[in-house]
Amino acid sequence: MPRGQLFIISGPSGVGKGTIAQRLLNDMDITFSVSMTTRAPRPGEVDGKDYFFVSDEEFDKMIAEDGFLEYAGNFGNRYGTPKAPILEKLNTGHDVLLDIDIQGAINVKKSYPKGIFIFILPPSMAELRKRITGRGTETPESLRKRLGKAMEEISYIDKYDYCIVNGELEEAIARAKAILVAEHSRVTDDIYKLIDTYKEEM
Amino acid sequence: MPRGQLFIISGPSGVGKGTIAQRLLNDMDITFSVSMTTRAPRPGEVDGKDYFFVSDEEFDKMIAEDGFLEYAGNFGNRYGTPKAPILEKLNTGHDVLLDIDIQGAINVKKSYPKGIFIFILPPSMAELRKRITGRGTETPESLRKRLGKAMEEISYIDKYDYCIVNGELEEAIARAKAILVAEHSRVTDDIYKLIDTYKEEM
Repeated sequence: MPRGQLFIISGPSGVGKGTIAQRLLNDMDITFSVSMTTRAPRPGEVDGKDYFFVSDEEFDKMIAEDGFLEYAGNFGNRYGTPKAPILEKLNTGHDVLLDIDIQGAINVKKSYPKGIFIFILPPSMAELRKRITGRGTETPESLRKRLGKAMEEISYIDKYDYCIVNGELEEAIARAKAILVAEHSRVTDDIYKLIDTYKEEM
Repeated sequence: MPRGQLFIISGPSGVGKGTIAQRLLNDMDITFSVSMTTRAPRPGEVDGKDYFFVSDEEFDKMIAEDGFLEYAGNFGNRYGTPKAPILEKLNTGHDVLLDIDIQGAINVKKSYPKGIFIFILPPSMAELRKRITGRGTETPESLRKRLGKAMEEISYIDKYDYCIVNGELEEAIARAKAILVAEHSRVTDDIYKLIDTYKEEM
């Protein structure tokens, strides 16, 4: 059985990567990874579905056992991507999707360089500003900070395999789907199993 | 303007690569390259459309001027892929598709390593045998030779970026299209032009 592939979708906050990721989950044969966090569950959140909710001690233990593909937050609430369930899915031939911020993606690249890294870009900074302010929760100061952070994050794009400009949502989704399909047509070691069957037929 | 991309589709004779290539030409924004040959035009063939028909001397001159991406046939009829019209299309932002045999593709890879190389595989050797004999022009001896050649050609698959098993034609075409779309979402130097426009907006 061919090994599954790990797709990492990331981009600046407000760019719409969550919407794209959700559509990939709905329409393609790929599953999410569930993150682990030390924060308390919010009303309605289900352990093992929304997050794995753990204590600080359990989180420390995971770190000590090299149990994360990546984790973040040294102070306060911490978040991590557990390695074992992802590797199990990949090993049984299933694709896994991570929807993660840039810092997290860079760390995943270190621990799992075979992943396929997709960066979602805004069509323009003006549009990103509009999307962020559309949420109505930003002061001018926090908006300025978020856009500055977005620019800094975008400078990491050379670590990624693909980038998709999320101007028209359906087109961006179609591109993301094409990437998933195309990556399954890559020449990998799996192909030699098929070639072996040819040889047996000769 | 982003540079166009050169896609090379190849595979053993009888695998159906021509049908897939034709559908890409019909459905996608990509153009064929016209080959050059020293053979005489057949009835109905148009110079500059089906082939560029040239004399042996003109062909030699093209070789001497390094005018081919690849050429083949040292004896008898010769065939080549002229470099200049392809580079002109690529430089003006147009994608170009080459439908070419394995030896030709390997030579194109040497002269244009940035090309995207797609190998079309049969679902099985039994199926390839069926497709070849379906044409009704093979003796048992020539069939054996062709299948042997196919096996030898398939051993070059590690030089390719992608492979598509042409079992169900529509699925194979969909995969080829996905590869074209995905390759246009690759992180390349072109992306820095977009990022420059972001910076101007900050």
